[in-house]
Amino acid sequence: MPATQPPRFFEDFTVGLRFRSGTANVTAEGIKSFAAEFDPQAFHLDENAAERSLFAGLAASGWHTAAICMRLFVESDLQPAGGTIGAGVEELRWPKAVRPGDVLRVEGEVTDVRASRSRPELGIVKLRATAYNQRNEPVQIWTPVLMVRRRPA
Amino acid sequence: MPATQPPRFFEDFTVGLRFRSGTANVTAEGIKSFAAEFDPQAFHLDENAAERSLFAGLAASGWHTAAICMRLFVESDLQPAGGTIGAGVEELRWPKAVRPGDVLRVEGEVTDVRASRSRPELGIVKLRATAYNQRNEPVQIWTPVLMVRRRPA
Repeated sequence: MPATQPPRFFEDFTVGLRFRSGTANVTAEGIKSFAAEFDPQAFHLDENAAERSLFAGLAASGWHTAAICMRLFVESDLQPAGGTIGAGVEELRWPKAVRPGDVLRVEGEVTDVRASRSRPELGIVKLRATAYNQRNEPVQIWTPVLMVRRRPA
Repeated sequence: MPATQPPRFFEDFTVGLRFRSGTANVTAEGIKSFAAEFDPQAFHLDENAAERSLFAGLAASGWHTAAICMRLFVESDLQPAGGTIGAGVEELRWPKAVRPGDVLRVEGEVTDVRASRSRPELGIVKLRATAYNQRNEPVQIWTPVLMVRRRPA
């Protein structure tokens, strides 16, 4: 999805504003490469070992799924001014494993907007986001809390 | 830290059990390489652009920090039987930016243990974990929820 949306300042965000991303293809090679660096466990690295694990087949690290979702989120039509800068996440769940061949996309909406107590130039925007696979099954549900620039006076 | 701890089954986890990890070195190259793939924003990719951003200098993507912390967590002395398998995270915060040259480590404790309602062979173990930099400043605070195998009868 091309980012044709102009940057949105804090004042442009309203509760209920929706956003959506393009898609990302998940490959066995990508799953293994991420796992080798950041989550070196057999069920993320080797098909045979994965068959015998709780996952019953090769599955992406949840943190790999989160990283893929971040890219989709950054490139979505949300486009906060100053960048997509997270203070944290209030909840992060992986209801279903991500598998080789999956095609992920992200959508969600703004759930809260409020001024920052400590940084007058910033506002806080909370969202609820869901990543779906190609069967429209949720694979990640999370609630990013963003710091967004106010419109210059 | 070598994983000399034998695998712990669900029955081996008790509230208050503490764990700790070895250390990980964060480099500018690593920050940029992760960002190029998963969080392509100027403050994670380019020192000069980062100086002019909210971060006032190159900073790791929060999701990169999370991935580094996962590796430390997997290789810590927690060692759940069957692997470190997360159902999700109840809270994830990045109170301070991670910079090139930082040395991270993770420690934490078990906060809850309970049977799984849907999977009798598994138990749920909740933890509170903190990643610190070399100045003992918290850079990530999170509450992993793990699925852990029960000891075979």
